[in-house]
Amino acid sequence: MDETHLYNLTFIGAGNVATHLSQALSQHHCCIRQVFSRTEESARELAGRLHAAFTTRLDEIDAGSDLYIVSIKDSALNEVLPALTRRNPDALFVHTAGSVPMSIWNGLARRHGVIYPMQTFSKQRDVDFTTTPFFIEANSEEDTRLLMQLAQRLSEKVYEASSEQRKYLHISAVFACNFANHMYAVCHHLLSEHGLPFESMLPLIEETTRKIHYLTPEEAQTGPARRNDCNIMEDHLHMLESEPELAEIYRNISRNIRAYAEKTKKSNP
Amino acid sequence: MDETHLYNLTFIGAGNVATHLSQALSQHHCCIRQVFSRTEESARELAGRLHAAFTTRLDEIDAGSDLYIVSIKDSALNEVLPALTRRNPDALFVHTAGSVPMSIWNGLARRHGVIYPMQTFSKQRDVDFTTTPFFIEANSEEDTRLLMQLAQRLSEKVYEASSEQRKYLHISAVFACNFANHMYAVCHHLLSEHGLPFESMLPLIEETTRKIHYLTPEEAQTGPARRNDCNIMEDHLHMLESEPELAEIYRNISRNIRAYAEKTKKSNP
Repeated sequence: MDETHLYNLTFIGAGNVATHLSQALSQHHCCIRQVFSRTEESARELAGRLHAAFTTRLDEIDAGSDLYIVSIKDSALNEVLPALTRRNPDALFVHTAGSVPMSIWNGLARRHGVIYPMQTFSKQRDVDFTTTPFFIEANSEEDTRLLMQLAQRLSEKVYEASSEQRKYLHISAVFACNFANHMYAVCHHLLSEHGLPFESMLPLIEETTRKIHYLTPEEAQTGPARRNDCNIMEDHLHMLESEPELAEIYRNISRNIRAYAEKTKKSNP
Repeated sequence: MDETHLYNLTFIGAGNVATHLSQALSQHHCCIRQVFSRTEESARELAGRLHAAFTTRLDEIDAGSDLYIVSIKDSALNEVLPALTRRNPDALFVHTAGSVPMSIWNGLARRHGVIYPMQTFSKQRDVDFTTTPFFIEANSEEDTRLLMQLAQRLSEKVYEASSEQRKYLHISAVFACNFANHMYAVCHHLLSEHGLPFESMLPLIEETTRKIHYLTPEEAQTGPARRNDCNIMEDHLHMLESEPELAEIYRNISRNIRAYAEKTKKSNP
């Protein structure tokens, strides 16, 4: 069995991930036979782009595909998966969610796995899949290899990851992306309260991001907490007195920066 | 009086900021006459690059410059400034520190101000001054204009900012850069604990940074806290049980993301 067995695909879902992923696979020698979505308009639109069939009914899902890729919201999985897997007991079934364990397929599909593209997808922007990391899991070595080969058609960065690891990928992404973005939001808030333009901060933010391409974040750390500059930290906490939630965040993160700096010092005396 | 009055400069300090800034000004039709530094090696090296004189003695500082730019660590200012300003009562004196108020010059120099280039400087990397924001303050309109014209030789982004505003620029930069970088450090820590490569996170971090070039950080916010996905947030807090400081940071930032989302909803009903 080789990669050509994954030639015929059906997509379950027509949202952001399904749209970007199905189009990319279609451009890389995969035949998308059908798109399923509960929303007829979405199903028709995506199927049109892919020159594929579409359906809104679970009992009309194509029974002849080799691989079924499920990209629907987590809360719909329980309803869709049993009906889907009944359609083709021999096929390979995968979902694309960071936070959903592979075990969701247990008892439903003999061959199953996960293809998790770790990127933030939005309708307005094209996705550069060549640099998007894909995390692969399957319940057999053979299907793991098949899915890795499939992902490698799109991306240079394909990794194997267990469900447990994927959970940690997800929480790590919350810190590095969602929480980092909130630091920008706090910055935006403080600047606009004092008549200062947020765009003035962009060069510094860009340089901060560039640095971690050649230093670890611990090595790249600068600022009053890293230097243990207590005078400036006290001034800053004083400035945040009217916003106790921000003062609390300032205190907690500064304390944690100190703890990381001490840890690094100990391991590199 | 016009910009040519700032042709002759003396630099006080030979650290990262002084090195990058003096070289850039020297390339933009300024004559750096002299470099002062307590460390003879630093003074000689920078002066050599600038084809300038150098001294390590306060009483040998050039008395004929039009502008003196002070880039030394905050703790050395009290000692250096009185001796410096005595050398040339008619000149313009500025410092380059984000956190030091302009009032530090009061009683010392008739004409004074601040040129604050807001960027992270490191010896290993060249600085792109054309996109670096400069924040200018002076104690007269005339000198404000002079300093703005000088900064505009280097940068497209020159702003006026009071000492009070500069304090808020600095604390904002702590959030957007130092604290955002710590979110990367936490991410790095969680990933390496589970055998996952940090480099896999870089495309997502880059996209997070790119997004705030065309959306406000509040508009760009995604993730479980923004969606108020309580199940995932509870799972995550459970995963962080063995690291209570991280759980605390997770809780505080998530709560603050919710608060910002509610605020945005109220102002755009």
